[in-house]
Amino acid sequence: MSRSLPVLQPRDLTPTPLFDRVAIVGLGLVGGSLAMAIRRTWPKCLVIGVDRKDVVEQAMRLHAVDVAADDLVVAAEAHLIVLAAPVRQNISLLAELDAHVPGACLVTDVSSTKADIVAAAAASLPARFTFLGGHPLAGAARGGIEHARADLFADRPWIFTPTPNVDPSSIETLSAFVTALGARPHVMPPHDHDHVVAFLSHLPQLTVSALMSVVGGAVGEPGLALAGRGLVDTTRLASSPPEVWKDIAVTNASAIGAALDLLIHELQTLRQGLADGSRLDEVFVAAAKWRDALMRSREG
Amino acid sequence: MSRSLPVLQPRDLTPTPLFDRVAIVGLGLVGGSLAMAIRRTWPKCLVIGVDRKDVVEQAMRLHAVDVAADDLVVAAEAHLIVLAAPVRQNISLLAELDAHVPGACLVTDVSSTKADIVAAAAASLPARFTFLGGHPLAGAARGGIEHARADLFADRPWIFTPTPNVDPSSIETLSAFVTALGARPHVMPPHDHDHVVAFLSHLPQLTVSALMSVVGGAVGEPGLALAGRGLVDTTRLASSPPEVWKDIAVTNASAIGAALDLLIHELQTLRQGLADGSRLDEVFVAAAKWRDALMRSREG
Repeated sequence: MSRSLPVLQPRDLTPTPLFDRVAIVGLGLVGGSLAMAIRRTWPKCLVIGVDRKDVVEQAMRLHAVDVAADDLVVAAEAHLIVLAAPVRQNISLLAELDAHVPGACLVTDVSSTKADIVAAAAASLPARFTFLGGHPLAGAARGGIEHARADLFADRPWIFTPTPNVDPSSIETLSAFVTALGARPHVMPPHDHDHVVAFLSHLPQLTVSALMSVVGGAVGEPGLALAGRGLVDTTRLASSPPEVWKDIAVTNASAIGAALDLLIHELQTLRQGLADGSRLDEVFVAAAKWRDALMRSREG
Repeated sequence: MSRSLPVLQPRDLTPTPLFDRVAIVGLGLVGGSLAMAIRRTWPKCLVIGVDRKDVVEQAMRLHAVDVAADDLVVAAEAHLIVLAAPVRQNISLLAELDAHVPGACLVTDVSSTKADIVAAAAASLPARFTFLGGHPLAGAARGGIEHARADLFADRPWIFTPTPNVDPSSIETLSAFVTALGARPHVMPPHDHDHVVAFLSHLPQLTVSALMSVVGGAVGEPGLALAGRGLVDTTRLASSPPEVWKDIAVTNASAIGAALDLLIHELQTLRQGLADGSRLDEVFVAAAKWRDALMRSREG
């Protein structure tokens, strides 16, 4: 007499996504990488992309998204909408959500500056939308979806900038969301964020661009041929695209202005002490100390 | 009947050195690397080192030199003397050669600035010495003989800065000497050299030190922990030692001052255009163009 074996039910082992449908508006380096990261982490999540027609086609070819179009209407049924265009476009997009997205929905963004977009969201979004500003501190020397990669956010900070009236549960949900993508969530007020990134990111970028422009203009191509690794490393950021940085400058002008003033003052101090090398000691000793701190913070 | 085989005379295949005895005064990163490069290229050349007692001992342990002492007297019989201390010490050393080196001798240096030392040599060296200023554009993030390596000069420019009355044969000899060590010799007047390196090397260094000092001071260690690769790459030079740079600043104050003025003006231009992003386009477009030129020049 034969015993019948139990019928094995195939079990679905892929993790249940935190959101069933995520729309990403803007498929550049960050938006494209986010789409890839979500698809890799949650195969069952429907990733919807919105961008210009040519970018949409490229995103489909790269299998970065499940569906995509050049119209916000495809995001109508999304549970999470991520605005991933340059910051001033993200601010304009906020005003379009009401007409295209009928249901309740969590909205976040990945803009490099936060005070302006957080204020715009508070002023213009209907109550059925919950907005929480976000900024992944991840990038690459070259932009565009062709440089996107699913691991762009691995072990990088992702800062959320709630206002006091943001529901804590949306902070928890989005923190869990980016943690699953490999990022390390941080929370700080929008103005604190803008102050910190003015120094960590915006001031270095403007300084490097100004430096490369001045050095190239002064020595020309024959002079640059004599340059060493020092100049090459120092000016890696000098290929950054102006479009993105114009948006950042305009939306963080006051924090960047204050940072630039401090740097200009430090350079003037060095300049005044050139003839006897005075002032150079204190600047170099401070610089070496902070450089050590910077490198230590990356080992931990 | 046995045929007798010819007796093989051992033949000396090591190349004949351009100089039988070379003295290197100052065994830091550059002097130490030069000693190692000479010993590797010409095993029959006697490499004589001069530095403080502890550095001399370290140089001997590293087999960087054949003989060494903490007194210039060991250089008395050298055919080539290379001054490889910081530039103001090299200028002081010029005045000591007369008392310690009795014979005719070629003298060069590896100082980062050239106008001052070339003028000092013309003013103070007796006629039996031939002085030709030199500057290998090679370095590393950390100084000291412990970071010296025989290939430091491989494929790097080595600039000689003759005055009109320097014998062309000494330029040819020293060019052949550094070519044999792997470097690419260039010739330019001292003031042209100081102008070019003010932009290629000194301005980037002062800018990076000022930037790191300002950024660290503004955001502190918790802020630096959020920094990305951009800041890390941009500030690699911020660990440079102040002693070396004080000498460079003092001996190239006017060229560095002019370079700093141009950068400060460029930063002020960016600062004034922050609110509408005007001026940013031109600076970023110029920067990207020169960055491309810089990278192209390294491919060739």
